[in-house]
Amino acid sequence: MMKNKVVRLTKRPNGFPSKETWSNSIDEVREIDKDEILVKNLYVSLDPAMRGWLNETRSYIPPVKIGEVMRAGTIGEVIKSKNSKFNEGDILSGWGGVQQYSISNGEGYFKVPTTQIPLPTYIGTLGMPGMTAYFGILEEGKIKEGDTVLVSAAAGAVGSIVGQIAKIKGCKVVGIAGGKDKCDYVVNELGFDGCVDYKNESVVRGIKRECPDGIDVYFDNVGGEILDAALVFLRIGARIVVCGAISQYNEMSAKGPNNYLSLLVNRASMKGMVVFDYAKNYPTATKEMSQWILDGTLKSKEDIYEGIENFYEVFKKLFNGEKKGKLILKL
Amino acid sequence: MMKNKVVRLTKRPNGFPSKETWSNSIDEVREIDKDEILVKNLYVSLDPAMRGWLNETRSYIPPVKIGEVMRAGTIGEVIKSKNSKFNEGDILSGWGGVQQYSISNGEGYFKVPTTQIPLPTYIGTLGMPGMTAYFGILEEGKIKEGDTVLVSAAAGAVGSIVGQIAKIKGCKVVGIAGGKDKCDYVVNELGFDGCVDYKNESVVRGIKRECPDGIDVYFDNVGGEILDAALVFLRIGARIVVCGAISQYNEMSAKGPNNYLSLLVNRASMKGMVVFDYAKNYPTATKEMSQWILDGTLKSKEDIYEGIENFYEVFKKLFNGEKKGKLILKL
Repeated sequence: MMKNKVVRLTKRPNGFPSKETWSNSIDEVREIDKDEILVKNLYVSLDPAMRGWLNETRSYIPPVKIGEVMRAGTIGEVIKSKNSKFNEGDILSGWGGVQQYSISNGEGYFKVPTTQIPLPTYIGTLGMPGMTAYFGILEEGKIKEGDTVLVSAAAGAVGSIVGQIAKIKGCKVVGIAGGKDKCDYVVNELGFDGCVDYKNESVVRGIKRECPDGIDVYFDNVGGEILDAALVFLRIGARIVVCGAISQYNEMSAKGPNNYLSLLVNRASMKGMVVFDYAKNYPTATKEMSQWILDGTLKSKEDIYEGIENFYEVFKKLFNGEKKGKLILKL
Repeated sequence: MMKNKVVRLTKRPNGFPSKETWSNSIDEVREIDKDEILVKNLYVSLDPAMRGWLNETRSYIPPVKIGEVMRAGTIGEVIKSKNSKFNEGDILSGWGGVQQYSISNGEGYFKVPTTQIPLPTYIGTLGMPGMTAYFGILEEGKIKEGDTVLVSAAAGAVGSIVGQIAKIKGCKVVGIAGGKDKCDYVVNELGFDGCVDYKNESVVRGIKRECPDGIDVYFDNVGGEILDAALVFLRIGARIVVCGAISQYNEMSAKGPNNYLSLLVNRASMKGMVVFDYAKNYPTATKEMSQWILDGTLKSKEDIYEGIENFYEVFKKLFNGEKKGKLILKL
């Protein structure tokens, strides 16, 4: 029998997850039934949204149950198939979870097209974070040429793509990131027009310097004080896309944006988005973004760590600012 | 020379305005020049928005200046005219301010159509509060038949009209108001389907009881804890119309909605509105609402107090819950 290293949710965390939130175990891989596939997972996607899936409260998808394999997007290779839609050797993206092998009826799995694009990109820029960026800034942010766009977590998997797409569409783009290294990366490598370093300057002063005429769209990945600062600079009719709130995910009680009445004064809107709502249009986005990646217009960066045993240590990097681009665990 | 009793802004308040925020004085009425009109003000509109106009900070209209006549909507009669558009005896609505007589070039003044509708209604349901309600719930709230609509300050000048319009459009409508008397009024006289009494029950429990399947639209006049409670019950795609925040206007530092991430989970939006943006469509709204008033579909309530000397005492009723419907000062 084949052995399967698995990371399971052991208990629900209060605040920041501890090592005991999950447990590592070794299962045996059972035989697959009719219509099933056995997938060997190659890459596991690590996303801030994972923190939300640990809570028992109502959310946009059910929480991960205690004892269940930790939910995660994956890229894997079919090594056995009794499903006519998939063949051995196919490379699939799907929800394989944090484990070496997954058995599935194939639902939610998609073949990765054979291209010159590296596999990890399919759970980054061409996966959930990239889809979030694409539909968030285009459909929810409704950017148009000449808009000033502010993006938090600008060096991250979502923010870095949001800003680059906004540049492609002719916007002025300013990022917010932590530390000189990340800010340099955002401006020099990703081509943003400016960056506010929230670790080394007042965010309000930084936005004022970079966006003296205010902002038309704020793409929010972080919430907290940075959202409050952005609210101060809204222009008439501005749109805030609420994509996430990294600063709040591990707090016992979330803190709302005290400056929200800026929405009233500026006839502005704040709207939440969940990428799954756009699932039927993923192929369009994948096609357009693949082209941008291939012609060098869109830069995709993955931060890859190895070993399923290191899941917890790598998970922590989602929140401690120790990564650039998309965080991935290679199995 | 005619004498004019005038209420002027004397100093900017911190927190709740004191009596010393304004001063009463007696001016002389000068002769009018070419193209000017002299209007004797009959009714002065008192609105929570007045509190915002006292602050020096950036807002949707300039603050009232120190020494200036306190800004207010008015209904008045033209008693002298050198303006070809207005005749002596015309009844006008406009921005006459808190004073007995106003001189103006007529800009922003509109003739009140002669109908069976009482004059004070033209600064209430057919004035700024009514226009706010009409465009707020229809254009911003985008209500459709069968929606569940929650309205705060439901016995107030705006909320009472919002709820009645939503009922006309086939929605289920639940109000939030303070005290049994107001709640009875909202349900029995205005025809709301239910009411949460925030003074005598937990708002969260009250909303849960009245809206067990959640809410599609929340029309927010108050902010604070009630906004936070409403956020808990948003349905997918819900809309929050941010019209005002009575609970926050007199606070030194505003408090944001801690549950705002409900916007994300529910793909919901929170959008600010300022009624002036709809000015060019006021005539349409006035026509439709006049008809509703005349045929008894829409109930308009005014709470009228007398005497310009009592401005401050009456102003306080905007915030202490001591009024139903539209607050008006009769001169």
